[in-house]
Amino acid sequence: MMSHGTQPAPDRDGRAAKAYPLVDKEMQAVERMLLTSDVTTWPALRDVYTRILTRGGKRLRPALALLCASLLRAPDEALPSSVIALGAAVEMLHTSTLVHDDVIDDSTLRRGAPTLNAAWSAGATVLAGNYMFAQAAHYSAQTGNVRVNQIFSESLEILVAGEIQQMKSRHDFDTARAQYFQRIAYKTSSIFRIATESAGILQGFSDVRVRQLKRFGHHFGVAFQVVDDILDYTSDLKALGKPAGSDLRSGNCTLPFYLYLAQHPAADKILEELKEANSYRWRTPGIWADKVEAFVADVCRSPAIDDAYALARAHARKAQQCLRLFPASEYRQALHELSAFAFKRLT
Amino acid sequence: MMSHGTQPAPDRDGRAAKAYPLVDKEMQAVERMLLTSDVTTWPALRDVYTRILTRGGKRLRPALALLCASLLRAPDEALPSSVIALGAAVEMLHTSTLVHDDVIDDSTLRRGAPTLNAAWSAGATVLAGNYMFAQAAHYSAQTGNVRVNQIFSESLEILVAGEIQQMKSRHDFDTARAQYFQRIAYKTSSIFRIATESAGILQGFSDVRVRQLKRFGHHFGVAFQVVDDILDYTSDLKALGKPAGSDLRSGNCTLPFYLYLAQHPAADKILEELKEANSYRWRTPGIWADKVEAFVADVCRSPAIDDAYALARAHARKAQQCLRLFPASEYRQALHELSAFAFKRLT
Repeated sequence: MMSHGTQPAPDRDGRAAKAYPLVDKEMQAVERMLLTSDVTTWPALRDVYTRILTRGGKRLRPALALLCASLLRAPDEALPSSVIALGAAVEMLHTSTLVHDDVIDDSTLRRGAPTLNAAWSAGATVLAGNYMFAQAAHYSAQTGNVRVNQIFSESLEILVAGEIQQMKSRHDFDTARAQYFQRIAYKTSSIFRIATESAGILQGFSDVRVRQLKRFGHHFGVAFQVVDDILDYTSDLKALGKPAGSDLRSGNCTLPFYLYLAQHPAADKILEELKEANSYRWRTPGIWADKVEAFVADVCRSPAIDDAYALARAHARKAQQCLRLFPASEYRQALHELSAFAFKRLT
Repeated sequence: MMSHGTQPAPDRDGRAAKAYPLVDKEMQAVERMLLTSDVTTWPALRDVYTRILTRGGKRLRPALALLCASLLRAPDEALPSSVIALGAAVEMLHTSTLVHDDVIDDSTLRRGAPTLNAAWSAGATVLAGNYMFAQAAHYSAQTGNVRVNQIFSESLEILVAGEIQQMKSRHDFDTARAQYFQRIAYKTSSIFRIATESAGILQGFSDVRVRQLKRFGHHFGVAFQVVDDILDYTSDLKALGKPAGSDLRSGNCTLPFYLYLAQHPAADKILEELKEANSYRWRTPGIWADKVEAFVADVCRSPAIDDAYALARAHARKAQQCLRLFPASEYRQALHELSAFAFKRLT
């Protein structure tokens, strides 16, 4: 793990709360809120849900909420309980989307452990996700802020629209690259935006500052997702907890795919071969898997990976620029460094 | 169709808005809100969603919200837009649960037409339900009332807990009858309670009146679900849009099941035979189907059906009693008659 100055990188395997020293106390409050659910009707669900929540998630979304809410914080000022509830809401919402993703993608590995869906029926997984989602909505309502509730529900629509776009464009290798950026802004940035924009609203920041925090969340989310998509090409099962190339294998085209084809002289031929192997993937899954493996190796050897990182870095810089409206502070510095971390992780 | 005085019974096959003359204008406003969604990213979803929404749903939940909100209404007073948003929220929430039910139950017929899930993948169905759910949360947020948002999210947890209980007790023929009532209070009454309690809150009714409206929603929902469960025994495909006995066939034990066995001298033997046929249902589905058919016919010939109706009627009466705190009005009368309708439908 590399050093990140005052803000150490979140430890992938450890508990996340300690990874954000400036808001350590508040992160622990979020953690307590997440792990003390009042519904005891289904202990099995409770266990699974605790297992997912304690499974080394980075708690990046609540950390962003807490740090953004601290941007004008006086030395001994405590964060209000509404901000803690916001932190719990965004983490729980994120977790619920992971659970439903398992049904949507029909994937069987997530964070290195079997997904819910491998052991459970689709129905049970849907309900587990719904339950977590209901918890998230509950936490959002606990902020007691009408505008935050509106942002939460509007972002939810955008989030689902992004997931729908992704599903729609699966196995459609001709989808335009522009759609990729829209899709990740919808699918990934939406939750980051809830965290950052709502933090400003709950703290009564000026409209112009709230808008900058919303933009911060957007660019942070895009940088984060681009890096996630790069890692799907460059990492292996051990490092990332899922097999390399799993996006492409399940028909999802991401930035490295587009950048590689854009710069390759024989792009049309490569694309045709890929589409053909894909069209027969049910009958000859081995051929499709080999094709994906060879393609992923080619992409990793090409400049596409560096180019994708450059794009992630550009979004991370834009995120950092959004913080300029706030006075220099250790909190602002921490957000600055987390933005850098978003495109640096595991490289 | 029988007569219901000033409040005609909702027409199962026609558009529901005209079925509630006292709040006709407001029902149309709810309808417009439901049918003008701002997300156009996935026309296919939009079409499906419009098809489900226009498919002869009774719009009972928004009607209850509007009528409850009218209980202290002055002659020329208009209902606020927050109440319209509430009506749209409860109907959309209800619709989203129907869509997810299709994944959870893996059923292929709903309201007489193939379900989403028969034509779509589980993933697409989950996302369609999530999208509708996000819309519902959006409408709830549009009420602009923090307490309503809290009720919405808390009820959602209860609703999902009820669905989880139902799934857990499927194919478990030894589940106690007491759990049945808790389950339907969770699963069905929860949305009715959002409608009735929130209507009172949005209209600024006194706390004691709001509590009575919450109780009204509870008892109305129980009566409604008991009748629904009776109809699953007594109706056929044509009348109800799904094959008779479909609850039991998919392993759900409902009130007629419990009442029949409670009064049968050879209950233990019947239950054992049923459990045995069920335990082999994958290997010999024909035997299980025959067993269910015979059992359903026996239940229908027994006093269990009348006894179940008596229980529904008792809950409907309790619902009616909750309205006593409100002055006599045509709105109160309409709610009174709808409560009677809840246990009378299709008998």
